[in-house]
Amino acid sequence: MADSKKSTESQKKSTTDATKKASTDSQKKSTTDASLLPENLPEPLQNIFQLIDINKDRYISALREAVGIRSISAWPEARAEVVRMVTWAGTKLRELGFEVELRKIGDQTFEDGTVLALPPVIFASLGFDNRKKTLLIYGHLDVQPARKEDGWDSDPFLLSECHGQLFGRGATDDKGPVLGWLHAIECYQAMKLDLPVNIKFVLEAMEESGSEGLDDLLKAQKDKFLKNVDLVCISDNYWLGKNKPCLTYGLRGLCYFFLEVEGGIKDLHSGVFGGAVHEPMADLIWLLDQLTDQDGNILVPGIMDDVPEETSDEQELYDAIEFSLDDFRREIGVCQLRFPQSKAKTLMHRWRYPALSIHGIQGCFSDPGAKTVIPRKVIGKFSIRLVPNQTPDQVEKVVMAYIKEKWETRKSPNSMKIYLADDGVPAWTTNPFHPSYKAARTAVGYVFHTFPDMIREGGYMNQVLLLQETTKKNVLLLPMGASDDGAHSQNEKIDIRNYIEGTKVMAAYLYEVGQITEPLEEAKEEVRCS
Amino acid sequence: MADSKKSTESQKKSTTDATKKASTDSQKKSTTDASLLPENLPEPLQNIFQLIDINKDRYISALREAVGIRSISAWPEARAEVVRMVTWAGTKLRELGFEVELRKIGDQTFEDGTVLALPPVIFASLGFDNRKKTLLIYGHLDVQPARKEDGWDSDPFLLSECHGQLFGRGATDDKGPVLGWLHAIECYQAMKLDLPVNIKFVLEAMEESGSEGLDDLLKAQKDKFLKNVDLVCISDNYWLGKNKPCLTYGLRGLCYFFLEVEGGIKDLHSGVFGGAVHEPMADLIWLLDQLTDQDGNILVPGIMDDVPEETSDEQELYDAIEFSLDDFRREIGVCQLRFPQSKAKTLMHRWRYPALSIHGIQGCFSDPGAKTVIPRKVIGKFSIRLVPNQTPDQVEKVVMAYIKEKWETRKSPNSMKIYLADDGVPAWTTNPFHPSYKAARTAVGYVFHTFPDMIREGGYMNQVLLLQETTKKNVLLLPMGASDDGAHSQNEKIDIRNYIEGTKVMAAYLYEVGQITEPLEEAKEEVRCS
Repeated sequence: MADSKKSTESQKKSTTDATKKASTDSQKKSTTDASLLPENLPEPLQNIFQLIDINKDRYISALREAVGIRSISAWPEARAEVVRMVTWAGTKLRELGFEVELRKIGDQTFEDGTVLALPPVIFASLGFDNRKKTLLIYGHLDVQPARKEDGWDSDPFLLSECHGQLFGRGATDDKGPVLGWLHAIECYQAMKLDLPVNIKFVLEAMEESGSEGLDDLLKAQKDKFLKNVDLVCISDNYWLGKNKPCLTYGLRGLCYFFLEVEGGIKDLHSGVFGGAVHEPMADLIWLLDQLTDQDGNILVPGIMDDVPEETSDEQELYDAIEFSLDDFRREIGVCQLRFPQSKAKTLMHRWRYPALSIHGIQGCFSDPGAKTVIPRKVIGKFSIRLVPNQTPDQVEKVVMAYIKEKWETRKSPNSMKIYLADDGVPAWTTNPFHPSYKAARTAVGYVFHTFPDMIREGGYMNQVLLLQETTKKNVLLLPMGASDDGAHSQNEKIDIRNYIEGTKVMAAYLYEVGQITEPLEEAKEEVRCS
Repeated sequence: MADSKKSTESQKKSTTDATKKASTDSQKKSTTDASLLPENLPEPLQNIFQLIDINKDRYISALREAVGIRSISAWPEARAEVVRMVTWAGTKLRELGFEVELRKIGDQTFEDGTVLALPPVIFASLGFDNRKKTLLIYGHLDVQPARKEDGWDSDPFLLSECHGQLFGRGATDDKGPVLGWLHAIECYQAMKLDLPVNIKFVLEAMEESGSEGLDDLLKAQKDKFLKNVDLVCISDNYWLGKNKPCLTYGLRGLCYFFLEVEGGIKDLHSGVFGGAVHEPMADLIWLLDQLTDQDGNILVPGIMDDVPEETSDEQELYDAIEFSLDDFRREIGVCQLRFPQSKAKTLMHRWRYPALSIHGIQGCFSDPGAKTVIPRKVIGKFSIRLVPNQTPDQVEKVVMAYIKEKWETRKSPNSMKIYLADDGVPAWTTNPFHPSYKAARTAVGYVFHTFPDMIREGGYMNQVLLLQETTKKNVLLLPMGASDDGAHSQNEKIDIRNYIEGTKVMAAYLYEVGQITEPLEEAKEEVRCS
């Protein structure tokens, strides 16, 4: 926990400055920047881009093959398919000349007692040239569960093309992006071009099931497989909208609380006992109602202490990002957003401000219909999304203190307990001016003739923190898919445009990383991963 | 609904007066009342009581036989057993000379689509002598579900005797009491005594499953089977404690509310959307928190308007009732009761004051573990126990008005809806000085050498309202079992004392009803049953 606090201190200054500079910079460079003109595209990339266009159908075929493997990590009965997917990817990598190792990472015990070997993690390396940077690429080969009868319009494991979109489980999460990297590398080889970087892959197949086993494996490989990595790239998130590319340099963290109120030794019938006892549910409802005001502001004193104040020009930076409030509102189907008039405020409250959500209550009557029970013990579940420079420790401390203080005033004879569900996850931001981000920015510019928006996201990705901690290097989040891809939903898809142009971005990014001449320093941020 | 209001008006005066007189009366007559001396027991009852003692083992055997029939009305697969239980009871009644009719009441459709015939209702009559009163006895033959593996110490359908207690499903609810009546009647016949009353039975076998079909049947029989009934007795509730008998002359009613708050069209991920939307759960929690204060008082304006004020001497009446606060507290296992020092207040708030309970929330995350969901639609469930002279109409009106007014001030863009889950059930009280109650009081005195406490209960029994409405006659609740019988729990039992002495009370009650000379007027209260 000490590490976590230290890291936040060191982030404190850099983070807000970085945000500010990132957006200002992206504004300064308008889309008419000369570097974006097709004639300025470096020749190797001209050829590679052409080749990618030519290979389009072959790339779609490869994705069809990958989607056809039902690599659902959550289903014990699909474990053989998950392993087949790993083997399939290993073979592809070997064909590209990679040294491939399938690392065993132990067993998994399911709730019913079934024990199965975890699918192996792929470690793959290509190129060991000291004069080149070494790029570590992370991706995953497993997918979310899917059944046609869940409401898919087509077989989720049979890639189907419709109006320029490719539908299938894993198309965008994360088989499409993984194949994008392989195809980008393949192009260099097909064109007999020297690969601009040394490449390492970490490809796991348990991402959709909590990345079980990855943490221990990577921590043990700090000074082995991960040793000479200079920069890390993950392509496993999404654009902010449907049209404009972006790069992601920040994620919120999480503190998830359990708040228990307990009365007697058994549930009571409200007819017989109602009126004679202090009901735990009323106490819990009251406590939960102390958490936010009617506008959604968090009422916990001290919660905002570590959150930097908005600078006078910060709103403009968010205003510059391409994002439609109307589309966003329509997508989730609410009458009115929390900040109905302000794109900037909406984005800020998704990325740079903490948010508190009450998820539910365990132990109360939650079925349809009516039941006249007085529940004896109820557990409220709520969480706070953390932002720079909050730390899980500090958030835990102020929340616990506040709830305990409020509880004192309630003077209930019931007992109350509050605790974190897991260790908290700190927020993550990185330097959006790191050479890796600059390379990606240029790469996007080459392909889309516009620079990407520099954005953050509201949720966390454990791998980001894990890879930053274990490599101590900058992590770039380079999304391939669009916001409407429906990664975990029915009818998951990737647009052909995103798949093909995204492959070009990857190839161009490799090229631009090859242009980096300065040494890449250790990432300043040292974050704890939970 | 107009009926319901009218009835309450007419109850208004009588109810509080009745409570007061009932308890005062029970206090005046001390347990040394001469009428309670054994030598004052009428001779027919002396003989009958002796016979009951002699027959003890045979009565236990009969109960063993009845408990052995697995008449679980909730389980489709047990329907044949339920019907077997009805047939078994019909045979017993015929053996006593009853005219028995098994009335078909239609079909039942289960959730899975299964359609089964409802078990028939027994209508049985013995004696048609115009010079005698006609007593209608209600009981039920079905039982709650039970499996040994639910935590029973013995097979729930094999009556087992231990330390003077008879364990088995249905032992106290309601097979023991039903057999009590049959054995009491049998004694009169065995002693060649003329039965003091005409008797009608209504025995149903769907009581534990909402008495499906009974309502329509009885309403249609108002002027047929139920026509000449003079008084009604139900033995299907329990003593207030373990030692002292009681008679029950009041029940609270119920208004059960559903309170919905709805946001967008889908559940949202709190990482991605938290901070950008008004969360329905926060709105609902706030609304629910407006319902009661920290002491459990209902905050709805007008809710107490129809509840009579406590009279200056009312507390004494409750103080006179045998009831141990300590036993009560220990039984439910709470640290402290709502009124830790006051037996009277505890009983009043179970019987003569309304109480509001929040039962649960549907639609939120209610499983164990952590889920970062922002539920799109949540439905709070709460109910208010109604007391004289509240009406469901009026309670519904003031609650809806209050919630709507509060909601206005919340200024949330989410939508809110509040409605009654079912029609409300009005509270019920009857005249505890009705000749039927006096007869029961004397009968209890004969058997237990103490007069019963006159009590109310906190929950409602639909049959009470239904029988009062359909017969327009006084309904007596004459409990046989004790407060710790665990009617719906594991290890349901009836004490042999309660079973045998309770049978004597029934026999003595029949005798005392035979002594009533005045005509029995229509019950003043006209209540609506839902």
